[in-house]
Amino acid sequence: MASNWEEFYATHLPPTDFEDNRSLLKEFCERHNKPGERIVLVTSGGTTVPLEHNTVRFVDNFSAGMRGAASSEYFLEQGYNVIFMHRLKSLEPFTRHFNGQKLMDMLDLQENSRNVTITVKPDSVDVLAPILLNYKAAQDGGRILYVTFTTVSDYFWLLRAACECLAPLGAKALLYLAAAVSDFYVPSYEMPTHKIQSAAVPNISLQLVPKLLSPVVSLWVPHAFVVSFKLETDENILLSKARDSLNKYKHKLVIGNILQTRRQKVIFVTPESNYDVSLTREQMLGGIEIEEPIISNVVHSHTNFILGQFRSAK
Amino acid sequence: MASNWEEFYATHLPPTDFEDNRSLLKEFCERHNKPGERIVLVTSGGTTVPLEHNTVRFVDNFSAGMRGAASSEYFLEQGYNVIFMHRLKSLEPFTRHFNGQKLMDMLDLQENSRNVTITVKPDSVDVLAPILLNYKAAQDGGRILYVTFTTVSDYFWLLRAACECLAPLGAKALLYLAAAVSDFYVPSYEMPTHKIQSAAVPNISLQLVPKLLSPVVSLWVPHAFVVSFKLETDENILLSKARDSLNKYKHKLVIGNILQTRRQKVIFVTPESNYDVSLTREQMLGGIEIEEPIISNVVHSHTNFILGQFRSAK
Repeated sequence: MASNWEEFYATHLPPTDFEDNRSLLKEFCERHNKPGERIVLVTSGGTTVPLEHNTVRFVDNFSAGMRGAASSEYFLEQGYNVIFMHRLKSLEPFTRHFNGQKLMDMLDLQENSRNVTITVKPDSVDVLAPILLNYKAAQDGGRILYVTFTTVSDYFWLLRAACECLAPLGAKALLYLAAAVSDFYVPSYEMPTHKIQSAAVPNISLQLVPKLLSPVVSLWVPHAFVVSFKLETDENILLSKARDSLNKYKHKLVIGNILQTRRQKVIFVTPESNYDVSLTREQMLGGIEIEEPIISNVVHSHTNFILGQFRSAK
Repeated sequence: MASNWEEFYATHLPPTDFEDNRSLLKEFCERHNKPGERIVLVTSGGTTVPLEHNTVRFVDNFSAGMRGAASSEYFLEQGYNVIFMHRLKSLEPFTRHFNGQKLMDMLDLQENSRNVTITVKPDSVDVLAPILLNYKAAQDGGRILYVTFTTVSDYFWLLRAACECLAPLGAKALLYLAAAVSDFYVPSYEMPTHKIQSAAVPNISLQLVPKLLSPVVSLWVPHAFVVSFKLETDENILLSKARDSLNKYKHKLVIGNILQTRRQKVIFVTPESNYDVSLTREQMLGGIEIEEPIISNVVHSHTNFILGQFRSAK
């Protein structure tokens, strides 16, 4: 019998830009599969579940994409190459610091008889310059690849393709699965073609989305270091749900967080133990982001994992 | 018996930033309630329907906010003052032309021993300068007010407040209701406090959202020129649904559009007639936006409406 994730792929077509993205992923992973290099796949933002084929309405998951976007910057700082697989129009590394109006407000326009120049106001240069430098360094060094998804089905196709390209890197591949993936979906054959008419209240028939962590860990990238996230709103069940997930999928780390406090504190749950990673009040006021200690902890564990593989191979 | 919209307000609290927004709306409308000035309220983007009190999941409406954002620029061009009431993080006038990366890519950084300067690359100045000039003119002239909503309940509170502030302008107020408002919602008392657990498939109990067009037209701004939108995916029902809406709510204009062709063609449905407003292939290739002829048609009708009121008052 086909597993439920195999059935999902069998009944959902790949997105139209899938082959382009697969080529980009392949090229990126091959280029960085070299001694001393590592690749992290960061998934970020929420997936949607369309309620109609010609989609007017969809169920979405709360996620601006802050965790994934910020984490990607710290991974780049630590020398990782980053596949930033994110929800279209969610926050991105670097640009997340400025919305469009904020950037426009930084600009000054000078006109003279000959020509027009536009410069960044001197007092905004201090803020913008370091971010712009890091952005350009990552771009020019070919160290970041942006790929996007919208629906949960897009996400499924991209994630499997990314895993296939990452598998040759073995332990040097890190999966940091921060995307907020839908738990439920409306099967293709139950979906109406046109916009649901509002004369009657619709009866939305939902099914459980298969958990991809299972094939990711056991089949697709069995030698990679896999980190998943667990978001809850009820503190009482967070630790046990994170521990259950780790026991079930046998990966390396679950990072648990509570919706209301996720910018200050997370809990690391490993096969051996669990511990908090949090910011002090002073750190928060000083503008330190929780992703900074999260990433240094993750990178530390990943390094030990690579060393462990290396030793056991001797 | 209370109408269903009255009951909605009675059972849903205003958003936390409501009083601030109400003050801003009041100040804006009073300042522009002068001979020769007009105000348009543009609503833009989709509203969400939270499925949980601590919201992790919500139902959303497909809308990037392009129609409302583009239309606002053309209204400003035509001399209107604009209240841009939009979904948080949807497209905005001016900044809609550039995403964050596109703006970052336009910037050049120069370092010398003394200091750092950032300038816009000469070949990007041509594109950016006219947009930046229009943006700054609207900002500096105090001619645009940005207010945001996320949930359908936020939208309800803001829309009523905006109407109350616009009512004194009489016929000089134009309502251009382009937001994609949810048709269904989960009543507060049926909503779980915490994230729905994925062990079981949830049974989402939806109710119909009351239609606000009714009190808008008959009670809140009875002298304003009100334009609503109708979006369908099925061409066969568009005209009759638009006509039904006009007959029911007795406002001035319904602009009908089909999801797949909404950037090329719309249909204007008025009490007297209906006609298409569309772009030729050449216009589309030339970068003309459909909102340009839409707004000139709307403004023309609004002007006639104001003149008509003036004549009938004599």
